Amino acid sequence: MSERPEILILNGPNLNMLGTREPEVYGAETLDDIEAMCAEHAAALDLSVDFRQSNFEGEMVTIIQQARDNAAGIIINAGAYTHTSVAIHDALRVAELPVIEVHLSNIHRREEFRHHSYISAVAEGIIVGLGSQGYTLALDAMARLLDRN
Amino acid sequence: MSERPEILILNGPNLNMLGTREPEVYGAETLDDIEAMCAEHAAALDLSVDFRQSNFEGEMVTIIQQARDNAAGIIINAGAYTHTSVAIHDALRVAELPVIEVHLSNIHRREEFRHHSYISAVAEGIIVGLGSQGYTLALDAMARLLDRN
Amino acid sequence: MSERPEILILNGPNLNMLGTREPEVYGAETLDDIEAMCAEHAAALDLSVDFRQSNFEGEMVTIIQQARDNAAGIIINAGAYTHTSVAIHDALRVAELPVIEVHLSNIHRREEFRHHSYISAVAEGIIVGLGSQGYTLALDAMARLLDRN
Amino acid sequence: MSERPEILILNGPNLNMLGTREPEVYGAETLDDIEAMCAEHAAALDLSVDFRQSNFEGEMVTIIQQARDNAAGIIINAGAYTHTSVAIHDALRVAELPVIEVHLSNIHRREEFRHHSYISAVAEGIIVGLGSQGYTLALDAMARLLDRN
Amino acid sequence: MSERPEILILNGPNLNMLGTREPEVYGAETLDDIEAMCAEHAAALDLSVDFRQSNFEGEMVTIIQQARDNAAGIIINAGAYTHTSVAIHDALRVAELPVIEVHLSNIHRREEFRHHSYISAVAEGIIVGLGSQGYTLALDAMARLLDRN
Amino acid sequence: MSERPEILILNGPNLNMLGTREPEVYGAETLDDIEAMCAEHAAALDLSVDFRQSNFEGEMVTIIQQARDNAAGIIINAGAYTHTSVAIHDALRVAELPVIEVHLSNIHRREEFRHHSYISAVAEGIIVGLGSQGYTLALDAMARLLDRN
Amino acid sequence: MSERPEILILNGPNLNMLGTREPEVYGAETLDDIEAMCAEHAAALDLSVDFRQSNFEGEMVTIIQQARDNAAGIIINAGAYTHTSVAIHDALRVAELPVIEVHLSNIHRREEFRHHSYISAVAEGIIVGLGSQGYTLALDAMARLLDRN
Amino acid sequence: MSERPEILILNGPNLNMLGTREPEVYGAETLDDIEAMCAEHAAALDLSVDFRQSNFEGEMVTIIQQARDNAAGIIINAGAYTHTSVAIHDALRVAELPVIEVHLSNIHRREEFRHHSYISAVAEGIIVGLGSQGYTLALDAMARLLDRN
Amino acid sequence: MSERPEILILNGPNLNMLGTREPEVYGAETLDDIEAMCAEHAAALDLSVDFRQSNFEGEMVTIIQQARDNAAGIIINAGAYTHTSVAIHDALRVAELPVIEVHLSNIHRREEFRHHSYISAVAEGIIVGLGSQGYTLALDAMARLLDRN
Amino acid sequence: MSERPEILILNGPNLNMLGTREPEVYGAETLDDIEAMCAEHAAALDLSVDFRQSNFEGEMVTIIQQARDNAAGIIINAGAYTHTSVAIHDALRVAELPVIEVHLSNIHRREEFRHHSYISAVAEGIIVGLGSQGYTLALDAMARLLDRN
Amino acid sequence: MSERPEILILNGPNLNMLGTREPEVYGAETLDDIEAMCAEHAAALDLSVDFRQSNFEGEMVTIIQQARDNAAGIIINAGAYTHTSVAIHDALRVAELPVIEVHLSNIHRREEFRHHSYISAVAEGIIVGLGSQGYTLALDAMARLLDRN
Amino acid sequence: MSERPEILILNGPNLNMLGTREPEVYGAETLDDIEAMCAEHAAALDLSVDFRQSNFEGEMVTIIQQARDNAAGIIINAGAYTHTSVAIHDALRVAELPVIEVHLSNIHRREEFRHHSYISAVAEGIIVGLGSQGYTLALDAMARLLDRN
Repeated sequence: MSERPEILILNGPNLNMLGTREPEVYGAETLDDIEAMCAEHAAALDLSVDFRQSNFEGEMVTIIQQARDNAAGIIINAGAYTHTSVAIHDALRVAELPVIEVHLSNIHRREEFRHHSYISAVAEGIIVGLGSQGYTLALDAMARLLDRN
Repeated sequence: MSERPEILILNGPNLNMLGTREPEVYGAETLDDIEAMCAEHAAALDLSVDFRQSNFEGEMVTIIQQARDNAAGIIINAGAYTHTSVAIHDALRVAELPVIEVHLSNIHRREEFRHHSYISAVAEGIIVGLGSQGYTLALDAMARLLDRN
Repeated sequence: MSERPEILILNGPNLNMLGTREPEVYGAETLDDIEAMCAEHAAALDLSVDFRQSNFEGEMVTIIQQARDNAAGIIINAGAYTHTSVAIHDALRVAELPVIEVHLSNIHRREEFRHHSYISAVAEGIIVGLGSQGYTLALDAMARLLDRN
Repeated sequence: MSERPEILILNGPNLNMLGTREPEVYGAETLDDIEAMCAEHAAALDLSVDFRQSNFEGEMVTIIQQARDNAAGIIINAGAYTHTSVAIHDALRVAELPVIEVHLSNIHRREEFRHHSYISAVAEGIIVGLGSQGYTLALDAMARLLDRN
Repeated sequence: MSERPEILILNGPNLNMLGTREPEVYGAETLDDIEAMCAEHAAALDLSVDFRQSNFEGEMVTIIQQARDNAAGIIINAGAYTHTSVAIHDALRVAELPVIEVHLSNIHRREEFRHHSYISAVAEGIIVGLGSQGYTLALDAMARLLDRN
Repeated sequence: MSERPEILILNGPNLNMLGTREPEVYGAETLDDIEAMCAEHAAALDLSVDFRQSNFEGEMVTIIQQARDNAAGIIINAGAYTHTSVAIHDALRVAELPVIEVHLSNIHRREEFRHHSYISAVAEGIIVGLGSQGYTLALDAMARLLDRN
Repeated sequence: MSERPEILILNGPNLNMLGTREPEVYGAETLDDIEAMCAEHAAALDLSVDFRQSNFEGEMVTIIQQARDNAAGIIINAGAYTHTSVAIHDALRVAELPVIEVHLSNIHRREEFRHHSYISAVAEGIIVGLGSQGYTLALDAMARLLDRN
Repeated sequence: MSERPEILILNGPNLNMLGTREPEVYGAETLDDIEAMCAEHAAALDLSVDFRQSNFEGEMVTIIQQARDNAAGIIINAGAYTHTSVAIHDALRVAELPVIEVHLSNIHRREEFRHHSYISAVAEGIIVGLGSQGYTLALDAMARLLDRN
Repeated sequence: MSERPEILILNGPNLNMLGTREPEVYGAETLDDIEAMCAEHAAALDLSVDFRQSNFEGEMVTIIQQARDNAAGIIINAGAYTHTSVAIHDALRVAELPVIEVHLSNIHRREEFRHHSYISAVAEGIIVGLGSQGYTLALDAMARLLDRN
Repeated sequence: MSERPEILILNGPNLNMLGTREPEVYGAETLDDIEAMCAEHAAALDLSVDFRQSNFEGEMVTIIQQARDNAAGIIINAGAYTHTSVAIHDALRVAELPVIEVHLSNIHRREEFRHHSYISAVAEGIIVGLGSQGYTLALDAMARLLDRN
Repeated sequence: MSERPEILILNGPNLNMLGTREPEVYGAETLDDIEAMCAEHAAALDLSVDFRQSNFEGEMVTIIQQARDNAAGIIINAGAYTHTSVAIHDALRVAELPVIEVHLSNIHRREEFRHHSYISAVAEGIIVGLGSQGYTLALDAMARLLDRN
Repeated sequence: MSERPEILILNGPNLNMLGTREPEVYGAETLDDIEAMCAEHAAALDLSVDFRQSNFEGEMVTIIQQARDNAAGIIINAGAYTHTSVAIHDALRVAELPVIEVHLSNIHRREEFRHHSYISAVAEGIIVGLGSQGYTLALDAMARLLDRN
């Protein structure tokens, strides 16, 4: 672990396509843009960031398990697995770290099957629909949560 | 309207009891504390705040209607009416202003009947479970939304 | 009570915004326009009109209770409370007057949660989707109902 | 087509039994009485009427298809097919004419399976529970709809 | 607060119409009759009574909030709000007083939508279908609950 | 009407294929065999029989309407329309004659969508799963019902 | 086993109250009347009858188990256990005898919870709503079933 | 029947374990304590009590049937059979006596499957969550019901 | 039957309006165009075609019954009856011929009530959303199915 | 209690028919065979066995209540009552003993109504589908549970 | 990309077992057989094929993302992920290529949980139940779709 | 394959965290402890064990496919994939080996979404809630199943 507390920022399937994918819904920023923005914002909060993406549910589970020893908190945008993955739900419970759930778009304005999240029940906080700013707001909130403990 | 863009921050039923009510869920802060914090935070963002609370669904509808002419955006914690009020949903649509929904506690960890929100479908963004900080994060997000337009 | 039988025409939340609100759905007429049209139409039918609007469920209940002694019939467009208010349903039953339910737009073409009405079960007749003309047709129908009794 | 715009008034199964069938629900008027009343009322509105009844879903579909070329609008009381016929729903969409749905009795006060209508989603307006007057009110509304276009 | 412990007896919408409203369901007694009966019965139990009625959900929330400081217990017949009000449910939780729910008629013999109560989950006891006697039995039970604490 | 009271025995879609269709479910008898058996059995009960089959829902409705004047009772095996036809349900109510519903096979052992019948709610009696004997038992029961009135 | 094949006719809870219980639904006959009628009718069919009644689900299970060795078929009116007893369903499967289900009244015209039967899935035939005649028709059908095997 | 009107107080399965069973839910009183309390309270109301308990659904049905001739009213705590027994529901209807349903604990705060009662639809009144006092309140209410008739 | 095996291609309600009806969904081809295309394609596969359309559910049942003797396979686009007709489902089972279900548009992208098909359970294959080419692909598949048998 | 800890092994309705009943599902062993096998297996684990069967839900409740004083643990195969008995669920909670639920066949491969068990929520462990060996495995597990306490 | 437009044919979990797996459902062909058949058929249509299989949902997502740059269209048989994967649904939307869904067997004749597909809503066309021929028909349809654009 | 029949023991996501994860639910044992225990227990039964864990659904599918050739049976604790994976369900069907499902904790006492298992329908036996002993009991049962075949 770096000297500054490390925050795992974990992105799920298809988020690597950001900037390409339905830009009218998700905007033109790429995931690299968001990573850069998060790194800068975290530094200002005296935090470091481990920024990851995977299309594999199993790999996301493994990354979360490893965070248990390396990270001080988890910010997660689980993409489509938000709605289907009990395994990620379980991994987050095992991790025993503060969790903040982020979604770029307002999932409650989209298809019915995107309204339920398996992540919400294991998250401290949830930030939805605020685009890439959602990530920096989540870092602000995480800094606060870590201070409080 | 003040010279600085005014943000209506509207709080629903029982939020006037904050600090008293189930402190293990909502913390010890009062609504006055939150109002003060919001006023200060808004000023730093060059925004002003009209901070309101009502136990009446009908009064909340009226306040939102009036915001149409006076405010640049709405931050709303509709309390229990979140889950039951189509009238507030409609008022927010009439207002044609950017809306951010806030909840102090994580409503997805509480009773089933608190999992659905009539506000979410008319909100730009949603911030849940981050306590009173949710209000200042919502102001940050509102400042961004206003810049973008 | 005026010498001509009085019809309570009661309008629910956000109908005071008519002309402003989503004109592509509801048209450019204001509620004042509709009131004037109803007064004129009622006079031709030898009826008088008590035309009211409230954003408060409780106030709508009280107005209906008072109609019991003053009015010969009730025409109601309960707006959003159509879908959520058992209290207005009960008040209409207590009133023991003929009731006609009106909706400006076709609620069956809108969101699922607007398809059910608590008013319909206590109404004699229902007129949906015919814009402001729905009010004058309701007056025609009410005149007929009063004749028949 | 007559020189006056023709309105198809289409009646579904068992409406030929009117006057016989459950008079406590539907009244003593026969369908011939209603046809006469409609013809007279239409003339006053400078409209003509093609008044039809069928017990066959398929025949109703065919009549609606033919109306496409002959009629200016459709008033339909689809009887029991209201609740079960996707085929009539489709035919009305193909017709591309203004549609007004009529029911003699208040279907929302009757059995649960009569509460849903496949017609409502393709109708401009809906008039329910006002007995045979529902037909003349529908003609009034149709005259208005045709004027507006 | 009077020297005798005060019990808030709170009545919801349309209960002011008692004696008028559907007497075959609710009987001929008025709410004033019940208030007198409660006052007398309470005195015999060495309790005092604050007997209130409102048609407004928001006002009921406010009255319950105020009871927190003034009352020793709450007896509530929330009328139609029983079935729809999360706000009253929340207010009763904030009040942190013993609550007894009363209904004059047997709500389980009436429409399906009257079978669920948002009050029951926050009540100590529930008394249903015993007419106005339900209020005095609730006072008996409240006296017992207060003794026990 | 013959001098002996006439019983309409009405058979729905695909019953004309009896003997051909899935003999392991329905047996080898043809509908003509059943008609002959019914005629003979009816004669012994001093009844006559009008034995009909149609694949058309609309024609079944019409036949039932005509039975109103000609028949003393109706025995109906509506085949697949049992599960989908509100129109036949309505026609049977209009007919105001005693109705007995028959099914050759036990519909409760077959697909879920065959478990609900729109006929049952308007029938005096129901006989299921007893093959062609179900028709003669229905005639026995009808004779009894007619005697009793 | 008697020389004539024995049919178990098993009656469930509250059927011993017949003649007393809701005579407008069930008629004035007692269960003894029905037993006598069945004995006589069976004799004419060259069958004997073991006519039983129990209020106990467990006792009904036991009687059915014993029928396995003594009876040639089972006619069952399981009363209220029709709708709740998986145990009787199982016992009837174990018995491996032909089963005919009988109900005096038309259960599809009564409360929703009486529309489902656990017996139907294990019965050959079902006779509903024909009063006590349902028992003799069931005996006729049973005689036929036994002939056929 | 004793000279004083007799009230059957019938207790269902596991209530014989009272005082033993989950005392944090049900308190330390035994069923004998409650019987004594009821006998004394009934005497003061000039009533007598027949206090019974059974673990058998069938025996409860039989006891209720016998009450028809011996008792003036029934107070029933059907325990677990509350939620599953149509047979007891039917027996109470056959009894044609006033019925009051009692539950020691607030069943609406417990598992979902305890929220529905088959007894409520056949009871005059329902008293829930008031512990053993519920029985004496039920006797008070029964005395009133008997006076009124 | 012609010497080349005949395939019944059966089209349901409103398909006669093709080319007229919602061209943005169904394209500009008419049903005659499709018939010509099918005849030509079938010939190349050494098949003949009996191409039919009906708006009547009952007539479709009859046509399918007749196909039993005349046709070697059935290609069916049942239009709106796809979603409501158990009678056509049954007729196809009676026919005991290979069945291929075709839909011009992708029914899974349209209204919820078009997602379920009663035809699918009795079809060998299903081709959806490929426009008029769906018919020729169905002929290819049918040729294969007939070869295999 | 015997010197060796006694385990109640309680079997529900129709299990007395084992060996007779649907041998393709349950095998040829009788309940006596299983009792013998359990007695022997228990002895090897230094446990004794009280092996019981009843067709009566009420008797099963009573046996479980008595086990409270006599037994160290309960192994239960509640047969059909598994799916319907809240009373046995309650009795097992009152008993405050370790409970292991056993089913001979895999209930999740059978009818839908056998998939839910009221026993599972009050059991420590559940063993399904392993035939009579399920009983001896349950004894092994019970021995372990008793050791651990 | 080859000079001929490339079609990604993507096969989901367990399809590598084809020929082994439940041959009575899926036939004896192996996936290699299907690949060879597709390659040949594509060549005749002047298309090339990239034929892939994966048991990993994440890998399927990645393959689809890569197709965005390399392929002209996607034919997908997602196997079991058809019914559970929102991630593949999203990937297909990101790909912005024409999609045809294929299933070897008729999924509507199998378990209930196989009736819903997350793929259908993002596919142009769907071909079900036609075995391996479904792949070549899909290639025919894809060739047509590509021509049309 | 070793000379002793090999049993695949396959563990799903997060089970590698055993001993760490929620020890109050799962105990302090690690997965290595369980593997050692299984190896020893299997040897005593003359079986060998291939003990595996994966967080990847796709990898679990692949491992099961390979077991088809190498193993004599499968013991599976699919963890969170139990509730969501149709792909593992399918793989187990393809494997055509005896399957026993194991869960450490009683999933029926946990969240609603853990009550359904896609594994149960393809398993011979199921052992739930008995901690790590569940694995050795499963080996006992597997030994028996292998003997029997």
